[in-house]
Parts: sequence; structure tokens; C-alpha cells
Amino acid sequence: MRLDPRRAAYAYLSWVVQGPCAPLNELVAKVGVEEAARAVRECELPAPLRKRTEARRSLDPTTAHMDLLDRIGARLVTPDDDEWPHWRMLGFGGMDVRRDPDGAAPLALWVRGNGGPLAKFTEQAVAVVGTRSPSEYGGYQAADMAAGLVAEGWTIVSGGAFGIDSTAHRAALAVEGRTIAVLACGIDNDYPRAHGRLLREIARTGLVVSEYPPGVEPKRYQFLARNRLIAGLSDAVVVVEAGLRSGARNTAKWSRRLGRPVLAIPGPADSATSAGCHQMIREGEARLVTRASDVVDEAGPLRLDLGVDPGPQRLTDALRRDELMVYEALPSFGSRSPRELSEASGIRVADLDAILGRLEGSGFIAADESGWYRAC
Amino acid sequence: MRLDPRRAAYAYLSWVVQGPCAPLNELVAKVGVEEAARAVRECELPAPLRKRTEARRSLDPTTAHMDLLDRIGARLVTPDDDEWPHWRMLGFGGMDVRRDPDGAAPLALWVRGNGGPLAKFTEQAVAVVGTRSPSEYGGYQAADMAAGLVAEGWTIVSGGAFGIDSTAHRAALAVEGRTIAVLACGIDNDYPRAHGRLLREIARTGLVVSEYPPGVEPKRYQFLARNRLIAGLSDAVVVVEAGLRSGARNTAKWSRRLGRPVLAIPGPADSATSAGCHQMIREGEARLVTRASDVVDEAGPLRLDLGVDPGPQRLTDALRRDELMVYEALPSFGSRSPRELSEASGIRVADLDAILGRLEGSGFIAADESGWYRAC
Repeated sequence: MRLDPRRAAYAYLSWVVQGPCAPLNELVAKVGVEEAARAVRECELPAPLRKRTEARRSLDPTTAHMDLLDRIGARLVTPDDDEWPHWRMLGFGGMDVRRDPDGAAPLALWVRGNGGPLAKFTEQAVAVVGTRSPSEYGGYQAADMAAGLVAEGWTIVSGGAFGIDSTAHRAALAVEGRTIAVLACGIDNDYPRAHGRLLREIARTGLVVSEYPPGVEPKRYQFLARNRLIAGLSDAVVVVEAGLRSGARNTAKWSRRLGRPVLAIPGPADSATSAGCHQMIREGEARLVTRASDVVDEAGPLRLDLGVDPGPQRLTDALRRDELMVYEALPSFGSRSPRELSEASGIRVADLDAILGRLEGSGFIAADESGWYRAC
Repeated sequence: MRLDPRRAAYAYLSWVVQGPCAPLNELVAKVGVEEAARAVRECELPAPLRKRTEARRSLDPTTAHMDLLDRIGARLVTPDDDEWPHWRMLGFGGMDVRRDPDGAAPLALWVRGNGGPLAKFTEQAVAVVGTRSPSEYGGYQAADMAAGLVAEGWTIVSGGAFGIDSTAHRAALAVEGRTIAVLACGIDNDYPRAHGRLLREIARTGLVVSEYPPGVEPKRYQFLARNRLIAGLSDAVVVVEAGLRSGARNTAKWSRRLGRPVLAIPGPADSATSAGCHQMIREGEARLVTRASDVVDEAGPLRLDLGVDPGPQRLTDALRRDELMVYEALPSFGSRSPRELSEASGIRVADLDAILGRLEGSGFIAADESGWYRAC
């Protein structure tokens, strides 16, 4: 069977850049994916892309990759596919990729598992993340939170790591819920090695996802880019337990940049494994939650995935993309200052005024002394 | 020894009204305390005061009260006295007593104990309050917090009740720190009865304070007025553990109205005795703290008691009372919207603009998109 040329182009480009690459996204948007692949292959490229594609552009293991995908029950999901989570990806539109090139949307995603379409899985999804070395208390909270969210119909997204991540995945599986493990390496790679069996179990009813092509080993910087995907595929991030220097706070940072709620579970005041959660709550970086219903309150009001089933018409369907970004950045209760909105939506304060004006004009939002709030 | 007539007038009036009474404060401010006492005695009064003073105005047990004070090592402290905490009382100036008549400043305070002058005790003071039925965790946190604050030179204010209150008092005594028990009954009354010995211990090196004259029994509504005094005598309130319907939240409410920080210690997410703390943090009613240094950060920057020792000249000495109220309502870091400032200072939004303008003009505060903040 001959591979569709657009799919082959996505596979090739995903392999060449291996990770977020804003200039490549721009090129694909401008000239199309096949022409972009040709330009990369022949090095007809602007300077930043030339360097980035240098190491691998003359090799193309796509045929081997596709054979491997067949063998392990996996697939490449691209923006051409019905299951591509278009809606989720809109969040990346608000990122300032000049300031942070790693904030780019993934070009395509490698997906292993039989759980169902990716877009369906990410329609209502919460990331449950935290330390690799939780306390007994933290493990219990992770399991309880994941099971509680599953009971409300939510998918559990996490990173497949030791500690809170795997506890959340396992709890979701135990109650027959949906779960997604987002890896910092190829989906054929059991990482961490001890989690090979867990990842296979997740693939049986859930999904294992990566933006890295098969065969790629985990590298330090890839974990940071992976964290952005965990946030990007979720409506909110819940940090269960985290020390002061936890990777979970990196995931939380991405969620804020994407304009989505960051939530944290408190613990005993003197617990080192809760110190990161407490600091985030104290500094206003996260909102305190104690149970699944708190999380649903924060993440729940707008269920925004048009990828698979647009469902009934929504008021917000009429909005432009940047208007939606700003509207989604407002909490369901309470208000935000322009600066907070800018931080939450990733849109510069200088650009916000016009957007706020349009949203106010059409009755979606209003303002009082405390700031802007949702009017519908 | 003949009793000073002004002191006698304060004692008589305190006994007649027994608790906060805004119209009486107004009358005293207008005509002086002796003339106010005469007017009450002879019922030459506006209607609201007539009813309020009806039950007791024809009796005057002041001589008996003064004898009792001598016997138990106690005194009446009035605004005439050096140890009257004038500065602390300014907070009440921001209260809207038409909306909440119970927000009035105390007319005078009955004080038992040899610890030192009341104004000195309240110069740097934090209220440590919470549930009467704490968990073992809560008890430990209360003791640890109180001892930590004492080590930083702070007085521990609480209500002498079972649970968190008494644990905080005892921890302060154990490390030879200052502590104040504010009672909802007369200072000669051991309430709760089982705490007679604790209250005597507090009186030995600390202070037992009440606005109710000797002999008064605790009544339900007096506890609410007492909570306002706990907040009024402190720079900040720390809620250690509290259920969803705890009296500690009433104390916290008074602290907010007085424009002072409300702080809460988190606990295990599923602990019923922390549910009130978590809700307050979640709703933005309290800031999360985990240790004494967090509290000092919030309560510490301005040490504002002119009662005993004005110390070196302060920039803020130049401010009018309402300007100080607003300035004090701003956090040392971060900003506030006018609505938040209004809630924190008790000054109506409508009246805030002029005050903010003056403070900005003199360089004390500034504003950006996120709201008003301290500029010095």
C-alpha cells in the first residue's frame, strides 16, 4: 500500500525536527506540508530552519517508521485526520513563539493504542501530574483525584513517569476510565523501562502519545517540550504533590501560557512534597482544589473540542480565534485584570484592548472595578 | 482614693452598653466622656441610645468593679491611658458602622495581667485562631506557628478557647513569649471553666482582655464581638484549622474589614478540620501560609503602633487617617483593585477615588493595569 504523500511529508518533517519548531509550522502553513517537505529535503530554507534541519534532512526513515507503527498498533495523527484535536491546538495560537520558540504547536502526533480517536480523548481532559517521589498521602490523593475525574467523564492525561503520573494512570485504568500517557521519547520506547507493562496497559484501552518519531530516546530538553503537550492536550492541570523544584511546575507554567487553569492540591504545611503546591497557591500561580468536583468547577464550563463532534451550536462559535483565546482565559467566576488576561492568554496587553472591546460589544464580557469577567 | 471622674465615666458607660455601641462612641467623641455619662444617666439621649442603655443606666456598680480589679490584679484601660493602643483602634475608623453597628471600636478595655502595657503587647501582634476540636496535625501546627512567631518578636492573640486557641497561648507561654487572651465575658470569669488555670498563667506574664465589665457572663453574640477585638488588636489573623462553619472565619472576616491580612494554614485535602482553611484560600479570602516567616512577610512591613513609643519618624506619619487606612489596606507586594481596597479598608468605592488621588499625588501609591500598589 502506497503511503499518502501528505502523511509521508508529515512523518518526514516530524522526524527531521523532532520537537516543537515554530519556523517549520510557519512554513507548512504558508506553502503546504508537501512543499515544505520538499523545501527541507532540498534545503531551500530560511536560515533558522536550515540549521534546525541540517542533521537529518538527507535521511528519510518514514517507510520503516510506518512498518513499525503497523506492528505495534500505532498511527501518525496529522491535522488532516478527523481525530486531530484541532480545538486543543488553538491554545498554541496565543503563544508568543518569538519569545519562546518551544511554545509551538506540535506538527503531528505519534499515537499508540486502541482507546479511540485522540480528539475524543482530549475533548474533556485533565492533566494530573506531580513528583516522582510522592508521599503516601500524595499517592492516595492522585488516585482519588484521577478516579473522581473519571467518574465525571474526564480523561486523565499524564507523563507515564514514576510517582504521581503512574498512580494517576493506574487509577484511571482501574475504574475503566480514559487515560493518555504523553512521552518525551518515541512511542515504541518503554520509558521509564520499568513502566513497559503500564504503557502497554494504557495502550490497550487508552492512548500513548508523542511528538517524537519512533526510535527517539528521551533527552532532558524533550521533557520540557513534552510537558507543554501534557498541558496542551488538557483543559486544566492538577498538581497533586510537588517539591519546590518539580517538573510539574513546568507543566503548570505551560498551562498558564495556554490560558488554562492551574490547580494544586494542598497537603500538610510541613510536607516537602507539598511545598511546590503551597508555593504555587500562595503566589497565585495555582488555585487550591481538594476534590474532583473542584477541578470540574474550574475546567468544566466550556467543553471546547470541535474535532470530532461539534455538538449543539455554542454561543462562542461566533467568535474569532483571538477573541476565543481571551474569553477562554477568563475564569467562570471572578474577574481578571488586563495584565492577568495577557499572561493567561499569551496575547500582549497592547493587543488586548481591541479584542476586549469587540467581546464587550457583543456582550460576551463586561468589566467593573475588579476587572473583566464573563457576561455569558 | 477617689476615682478619677473620667475613668469612672468610662467604667460606667462600658458597663451600661456591654459591647460595641457606635452611637455611644459618637456621643463620647462629641461631648466628652463625662458629659456622655451624665446624659446616659439622665436619659438625655437620641432614640437608638435610649433603648440600648435602658436596662442598666440607673445602676452604677463602678466602685465594686474597681475594688474587684484591685483584688485580681486588673485595670480599666481607656483612651486616656498611655497604654491605650490608639494606633490599633484606627482600623475601626474605616468600618461602616451604619451597615454594621457591631464594627465600632471598644469604648474601653478591662485588662488583667502583669505582662506589660497593652499598647506594647499589641505593637506587633498576630492572632492565631481555629477550631475547638483540632486534629493532632492542627494542634502541632498551632504550637509551631505560635512559637515561631514569638521567636520573631510577635505577640500571640487568641480567644482562650479549647483547641487551637489554647494551644497557641500555651505554646507562646512555653517559649516565654507575649500572649493576649481576649474574652467574651468579664476578665474575672473563668471561661471556659476548665481554662481557669490557663487564664491565670496568661495573666502572670501576659494579658487577659475584655470589653465586658467584671461579672458579665459569656453570651452567644458576645463571641462575635469578641472576635472583632481579636482581629482589632492584631496585625493579621492566622487560621490554623477550621471546619466549614468555624468561628475562626468570623474573626477572619473582621480582619478583612479592618484592612488586615487573613492567612490560613493548609492541611490534608480530605481533612474536615482544614476544610474551612481550604475554602478561604480557594475563594481568595485568605492567603496560604505554611510557617511563621510567611506570616511575618504578610503582617510585618509596617509596624504601626504610636501608643507607647512612636519611634523614629515614619513617612506615613504625614498621612491623614483615611489615607492611612487605604495605604495600610494595600499589600506589601502585589496590587488591589478599587473594589478589593474598598472591602479591605471598609471605605466606600465612591469615597476611594479622592483618597487614591491624594496618595498617588504624594507618591505613596501608584497604579498599573493590575490595580493600585504601594510605591514606598
